[in-house]
Amino acid sequence: MLKQKLQHKVDFKSKPIGSLGKLEAIAIKLGLIQNTLNPQIMHPTHIVFAADHGLSEAGVSPYPKEVTYQMVYNFLNGGAAINVFCRQHQINLKLVDAGVDHDFPDVPQLISAKMGKGTNNILLKPSMDIDTCNKCLKKGAQILDTEYHKGCNTISFGEMGIGNTASASLLMHKYTGNTIENCTGRGAGHDEEGLKKKIYILEKASAMYPNTDPLSTLATFGGFEISMICGAIMQAHKRGMCILIDGFIVTSALLAAYSLNNSVLDNCIFCHCSDEKGHRFLLEYLNADPLLNLDLRLGEGTGAILAFPLIQSAVLFLNEMASFDSAGVSNKN
Amino acid sequence: MLKQKLQHKVDFKSKPIGSLGKLEAIAIKLGLIQNTLNPQIMHPTHIVFAADHGLSEAGVSPYPKEVTYQMVYNFLNGGAAINVFCRQHQINLKLVDAGVDHDFPDVPQLISAKMGKGTNNILLKPSMDIDTCNKCLKKGAQILDTEYHKGCNTISFGEMGIGNTASASLLMHKYTGNTIENCTGRGAGHDEEGLKKKIYILEKASAMYPNTDPLSTLATFGGFEISMICGAIMQAHKRGMCILIDGFIVTSALLAAYSLNNSVLDNCIFCHCSDEKGHRFLLEYLNADPLLNLDLRLGEGTGAILAFPLIQSAVLFLNEMASFDSAGVSNKN
Repeated sequence: MLKQKLQHKVDFKSKPIGSLGKLEAIAIKLGLIQNTLNPQIMHPTHIVFAADHGLSEAGVSPYPKEVTYQMVYNFLNGGAAINVFCRQHQINLKLVDAGVDHDFPDVPQLISAKMGKGTNNILLKPSMDIDTCNKCLKKGAQILDTEYHKGCNTISFGEMGIGNTASASLLMHKYTGNTIENCTGRGAGHDEEGLKKKIYILEKASAMYPNTDPLSTLATFGGFEISMICGAIMQAHKRGMCILIDGFIVTSALLAAYSLNNSVLDNCIFCHCSDEKGHRFLLEYLNADPLLNLDLRLGEGTGAILAFPLIQSAVLFLNEMASFDSAGVSNKN
Repeated sequence: MLKQKLQHKVDFKSKPIGSLGKLEAIAIKLGLIQNTLNPQIMHPTHIVFAADHGLSEAGVSPYPKEVTYQMVYNFLNGGAAINVFCRQHQINLKLVDAGVDHDFPDVPQLISAKMGKGTNNILLKPSMDIDTCNKCLKKGAQILDTEYHKGCNTISFGEMGIGNTASASLLMHKYTGNTIENCTGRGAGHDEEGLKKKIYILEKASAMYPNTDPLSTLATFGGFEISMICGAIMQAHKRGMCILIDGFIVTSALLAAYSLNNSVLDNCIFCHCSDEKGHRFLLEYLNADPLLNLDLRLGEGTGAILAFPLIQSAVLFLNEMASFDSAGVSNKN
């Protein structure tokens, strides 16, 4: 019923039927998520979770592990891409240390949720045990709830963690059954040789562990940041929030959440199809039709923030545009 | 030299090389247009030109001709999609009566540049004579200059005119040599039958006139709004402004400008690939790689305004992001 009413509201705006393309689908989806004909975006918030990965020791990234903590300082100093774009669109930016291998000073801008100094090296043992993974899910939900209770109804996520595309590729491989090769891309910038090595390592890691239940898969191959994002996504769904999805790693966290509860997708708007190889396959698997395709592969959730003004445009046309009637414009013959 | 310096500036931002995708190309292009390492967007302005088309009598649109003037009132009242999106991004919106078949009251928000009460019906004689077409080009340049002298350095265009996709299809056919069928789409909402009829009429109109020089082609098939946009584009290029291109009709005006002076493309950023059939072929002809593909076909230049925040993002990352050095982040091994 609400869906038909929203469609009717969209169709009688003073424009040819369907002529706002993908924005029309977004407007209707937002109305359904918020259960209203007049959706509003309130206190939009972006949370970046950072953590280190034991697998980075195996050479799955061309960048040294130190870049994870150095980039956290860059976030704290406001100099990273995500800072620039969040400032541009006045989006509340939150930073979480989910498990970086560095002792940060106690500063109010950095939420401490350290689960360790990086995950285990998967080539030796699972990333984390089930208990730790459950703690990550709970912590992610708590951090989400803090923003929800401040009035936030629109959330997006970013990540920082050298080696985390490797973790995302393994999760995708295990959850979707697609080949390691299709799930693995150049990450932050591998050449052909580096990519081959990465695939070799991931095939080895995958073969070490049998297929198992969704939570164990997350514990075995996920990172602290990926597991917390998974928990935050599930909580955002529970809270009826709109979840803006961007990036290969965040989408892998969504995939874990989806494996635990299919209905999380009802609250998701897909923002960008990344240049990272596995992302396109993963979006197809989730039947997602993202808004943007800007060849981004920076991470941090930049694609969600760049798509944010389009989500706002969808809300604004639905609430502010005149109808044929109210504008006194003749409809189609 | 400047191009290399801009590329260097982009490459040493604290992010993997190339990871901001299309935004990087935009940042460099803006620097080149403005001849600086620190481009700025100043007083962004959107001008909508409205006019009627004699060919609308032949049934090339499913909407009645009256919609042109009714939509101008909708613009004046702030209720159209373009009003909503310009408000959202604080873009200065200008409205021009280039030749609508209606007597508007004298209001300051509407620039009067009436060249007549619609063009001639091309099935009877050329849209306008060469003299009128030259007047349109000059008027478009004048209107552009008024904004330039107020400090505007970034301009985009929209149009309103029932029947104007037919005019744009004919211009595209004559300038590019592509078939009428490839150049013709559903416009504001033809069904299969309506589209066939439109193609039949356009083939008839095309056959009536021999191929000739670019200006005569514009006079024969163009509209008052298309010709004024062509003049405004040429003047914006002369003034060194950044020109945001969106929409099939505006792109046909650019095509006319390009036929008169190839170098106008140096100042253009392509914003959106429309759902209108001919637009994709036309963008390919111009080697354009637009930022967005949202299946829009509303007109009014909405795609340019929806892409505007991405252009701003390109400027902001270039000017505000930290470099690897300044952020103290290790570069690739």
